[in-house]
Amino acid sequence: MRNIRLKISYDGTRYQGWQRQKAVESTIQGKLEHILTKMTGEEVEIHGSGRTDAGVHARAQVANFKTECRMTTEEIKEYVNAYLPLDIAVTEVKEASERFHSRLNVVGKRYIYRVWNSTEHNVFERNYVYPFVGNLNLEKMRKAAEILMGTHDFQSFCGRKMKKKSTVRTIRKLDIEQIGHEIRFTYEGDGFLFHMIRILTGTLLEIGTGEIQLEALPGILESKTRENAGRTAPACGLILDEVFYD
Amino acid sequence: MRNIRLKISYDGTRYQGWQRQKAVESTIQGKLEHILTKMTGEEVEIHGSGRTDAGVHARAQVANFKTECRMTTEEIKEYVNAYLPLDIAVTEVKEASERFHSRLNVVGKRYIYRVWNSTEHNVFERNYVYPFVGNLNLEKMRKAAEILMGTHDFQSFCGRKMKKKSTVRTIRKLDIEQIGHEIRFTYEGDGFLFHMIRILTGTLLEIGTGEIQLEALPGILESKTRENAGRTAPACGLILDEVFYD
Repeated sequence: MRNIRLKISYDGTRYQGWQRQKAVESTIQGKLEHILTKMTGEEVEIHGSGRTDAGVHARAQVANFKTECRMTTEEIKEYVNAYLPLDIAVTEVKEASERFHSRLNVVGKRYIYRVWNSTEHNVFERNYVYPFVGNLNLEKMRKAAEILMGTHDFQSFCGRKMKKKSTVRTIRKLDIEQIGHEIRFTYEGDGFLFHMIRILTGTLLEIGTGEIQLEALPGILESKTRENAGRTAPACGLILDEVFYD
Repeated sequence: MRNIRLKISYDGTRYQGWQRQKAVESTIQGKLEHILTKMTGEEVEIHGSGRTDAGVHARAQVANFKTECRMTTEEIKEYVNAYLPLDIAVTEVKEASERFHSRLNVVGKRYIYRVWNSTEHNVFERNYVYPFVGNLNLEKMRKAAEILMGTHDFQSFCGRKMKKKSTVRTIRKLDIEQIGHEIRFTYEGDGFLFHMIRILTGTLLEIGTGEIQLEALPGILESKTRENAGRTAPACGLILDEVFYD
């Protein structure tokens, strides 16, 4: 049986996230499975590298599916893109080894969170940034980022109680760049908990405004209590930028 | 009386173009005048550098208005942006000389027309490109662009019968670049007729596909007959990029 690997871009604005739900049409996975099932005549199930929440975007989500279908990878790409709506695109279709699994084989991910820090709207990218008005102390935010980097128990930055599974993760990179009116957060790590990047970003913004003291951050981490961290930044500013495999 | 000059960006998708109509809320001019009238308590009338059609975008439209209001340019910018919807932004507010008029003083304009030449959707910029699937002979299109450059009577490329006014215009620049899947047309000239850039682009695309022969182009220009030129390319791919003044 063939194992096909896809790279997918999407604007998450209109969707209930990646993962299939009963209302098939409102998720990215649902849209893709619907088209692939029609294309192959098989009951196709696709595996994504992970879920993205409702409203979150992806530049390069990775997914795979098994099929007996004989179409070339180029033909599959043309077919799927012809049926996808304009806010989803398959950007790459490749043959994968039989053992490849988009989620189980992930060794890391990169997410970008874009904050638009101006009263002047970002007209052309307004759906991909979080408009945040207010003065931000970037120096303090970057010091906070240094504290957050590395391996920690991120329970305080997890939007869901995790009773059995580990909440220890490693952040390999946490860059905060200023590009004109934009403050761009780049996160790279082995994996991220539910809402983790949005809570990290929300907390960093509150450190930037002074609502949370930089000095309080180590204690917030150690407390393993969600309520001690900052707000969850909105989905619209978040994009899954890259998924890494060995 | 003060004369205030504005630079404005907008995503034209939701609007009936620049020019005020009865339904005030559906034009860019209408939106701006509504806010400025509220701000100043005066009946503000703004003059744009020219109209843009329904669905056409602008990176830097220029407009001016007269007022007795005492707010600083920075305060005006903050006020207007606070009331504008997310798809319109005022990016610059300046004091202009008493004689400055956004339309009468224009010495040139630059428009960009973006064609997306792939079956793979441009997910994040889908509202700003014209998706056009088909093979394009760029070499022929560039030769056609050379023929179109310079000073000509562009009656064949005007979407409206002009009985009294001159239809002679000068195109100073007509570049066709390939940037990945995008074919980007850059037009600079002293002024452009109604639908002129969209008809020029539609004609260049038909020369690219071979529907119109390159050799026929001089005759199309000379015929001064709209029906001989190509189709009008859709509004969504067009953006007013810059307005030039002395």
